[in-house]
Amino acid sequence: MTSDALPRTRLHVDAPLGEGRAVALSEPQAHHLRGVLRLAPGAGLRLFNPRDGEWLARLETLTKAGGSALAERRLRPPAPAPDLWLCFAPVKKDAIDAVVEKGTELGAAVLQPVFTRFTDVQRVNLDRLRAHAVAAAEQCERLDVPEVRDPVGLDALLAGWPAGRILLVCAEAGAARPLAEAAAEAAGPAALLVGPEGGFAPAELDALIRHEFVRPVGLGPRILRADTAAIAALAVWQSLAGDGRGRPPHRV
Amino acid sequence: MTSDALPRTRLHVDAPLGEGRAVALSEPQAHHLRGVLRLAPGAGLRLFNPRDGEWLARLETLTKAGGSALAERRLRPPAPAPDLWLCFAPVKKDAIDAVVEKGTELGAAVLQPVFTRFTDVQRVNLDRLRAHAVAAAEQCERLDVPEVRDPVGLDALLAGWPAGRILLVCAEAGAARPLAEAAAEAAGPAALLVGPEGGFAPAELDALIRHEFVRPVGLGPRILRADTAAIAALAVWQSLAGDGRGRPPHRV
Repeated sequence: MTSDALPRTRLHVDAPLGEGRAVALSEPQAHHLRGVLRLAPGAGLRLFNPRDGEWLARLETLTKAGGSALAERRLRPPAPAPDLWLCFAPVKKDAIDAVVEKGTELGAAVLQPVFTRFTDVQRVNLDRLRAHAVAAAEQCERLDVPEVRDPVGLDALLAGWPAGRILLVCAEAGAARPLAEAAAEAAGPAALLVGPEGGFAPAELDALIRHEFVRPVGLGPRILRADTAAIAALAVWQSLAGDGRGRPPHRV
Repeated sequence: MTSDALPRTRLHVDAPLGEGRAVALSEPQAHHLRGVLRLAPGAGLRLFNPRDGEWLARLETLTKAGGSALAERRLRPPAPAPDLWLCFAPVKKDAIDAVVEKGTELGAAVLQPVFTRFTDVQRVNLDRLRAHAVAAAEQCERLDVPEVRDPVGLDALLAGWPAGRILLVCAEAGAARPLAEAAAEAAGPAALLVGPEGGFAPAELDALIRHEFVRPVGLGPRILRADTAAIAALAVWQSLAGDGRGRPPHRV
């Protein structure tokens, strides 16, 4: 459980945080604090952003239109998160929400929707996904919020691939190393790519493996749903190449 | 993708499978084949059970009340699955459905609901969960279906714990080894235990770690939702101590 001394309410803010700094709260934040949590001025809360870490703060004003809080004391310094992207074919609403929510909990730095040949979802509601990412980050004790990028096609993703980042492609067919093995050897920036329910087209897999930054990896002998594969791959990577040795803060 | 030669329809049956053996199909199976998949006698399908493996079969009769299929040829021999139990505090409907569905995909042999101090779900619909487990097993190419056990209290679970099986307790608080480290060293029967959203009570954690078969393990620095923790823990265990090196069958 969380230490009794700390407020449970935890909000991500864009503004700088520092001792004695006033921070404006947005209308949706004010609505949540007032309407859902029933907080009033004077209540404690925690504020965080990736540059300044996590701060204990006190609610100063709260109206329907917004509010403000005063940062009092730093609880956690900023800490770099593992440099891991999750690239995934969009799936239907509940499943894509799960990918974003659980991808945030499992520490992805970037969530990149990718359209592939067999992707049968045509539109992605980025506003909804970004709101899910913020909510999940606030709940899971992260110090940052994953960047939910605009969707791209697979060809464009590969054409613009940054130098020095490996791409671990979760492949159900063809030769592949176990993800655990590839992750244990990985060093530096990485990305996972998970296809849609129908998998990658053979031509897509052929094109993928021609890139020197691509590593085909396997997730075991069972066929995983797309959202399961994304969550499982993140968990395995973090446990072996990421911050899986860390422990949750503020636990007693 | 699945090899073109193989029917996509895959059903778990209790009956023995063997060359030329007729297998009765249940009313729900007949309903699914007729009403959802629009199959007719003569259609190919795959049947499996953990004792006889997976068989190519042909639909012989199909009515509203049931049907029958004739097993023709064995596609895969039976293969032992990793001996891994997932013990988990029941969570609300969507999340517990996800635990069962994805727990099946990730190869849990037993799914054991466990009531703990902070579990705020009082009832578990076992019929629904068992149906989800069968459907997920049929979809993910497993040769067996995980056993969804009747819920028990944590005390009863520990009191009746079988000799020789380790229990990896996912603990957010207190001393714990990284799960990846504990899994890499594990040999023999194992179980994972994941608590409810509120975590374990301190007294529960104290009681747990007094048992010699208990190993407290951590899943990294973020607080995971209960369903995320269950899925992540299974993925990590399978990748290091289970069948994570295996590849899906029938892929070209």
